[in-house]
Amino acid sequence: GDARAGRQKITACQACHGLDGLSKNPEAPNLAGQVEDYLVRSLTAYRSGERKNESMNIVAKDLSDADIADVAAYYAAIQVDVLPP
Amino acid sequence: GDARAGRQKITACQACHGLDGLSKNPEAPNLAGQVEDYLVRSLTAYRSGERKNESMNIVAKDLSDADIADVAAYYAAIQVDVLPP
Repeated sequence: GDARAGRQKITACQACHGLDGLSKNPEAPNLAGQVEDYLVRSLTAYRSGERKNESMNIVAKDLSDADIADVAAYYAAIQVDVLPP
Repeated sequence: GDARAGRQKITACQACHGLDGLSKNPEAPNLAGQVEDYLVRSLTAYRSGERKNESMNIVAKDLSDADIADVAAYYAAIQVDVLPP
């Protein structure tokens, strides 16, 4: 997918997943730097209803394959540095 | 949960999710710095089979509630810094 195009399609995501992909909501996971393929499969499963979540089934309902690919590319492109405890 | 105790229980996780919680496997998501509550609910759903994934249903099968809480605490305790593209 195209991360730049994805950036124009993430307003709905940011409400729960944060402006920078770090979640602001205990129900919602962080998306920043997540594995692109995992994001594509999750969004596709939420769109088909194979994976159940009230908010995500609504949000994903009208996404096209291109939307899913672009949004996944955007979040996967966020650089993540980690420091184990 | 107890992140220090969790560190002793993550050998099975590291195989796919990486030593530092950054996935080494396109099928497996990153866990580093993930939302603790989300990790607890995911592991619990994989244990009960409510959420289906071949590897995770096997890995989660024998986890106690304490194991789940500790592993979730460990991964949530990994500090994450992000840089959007």
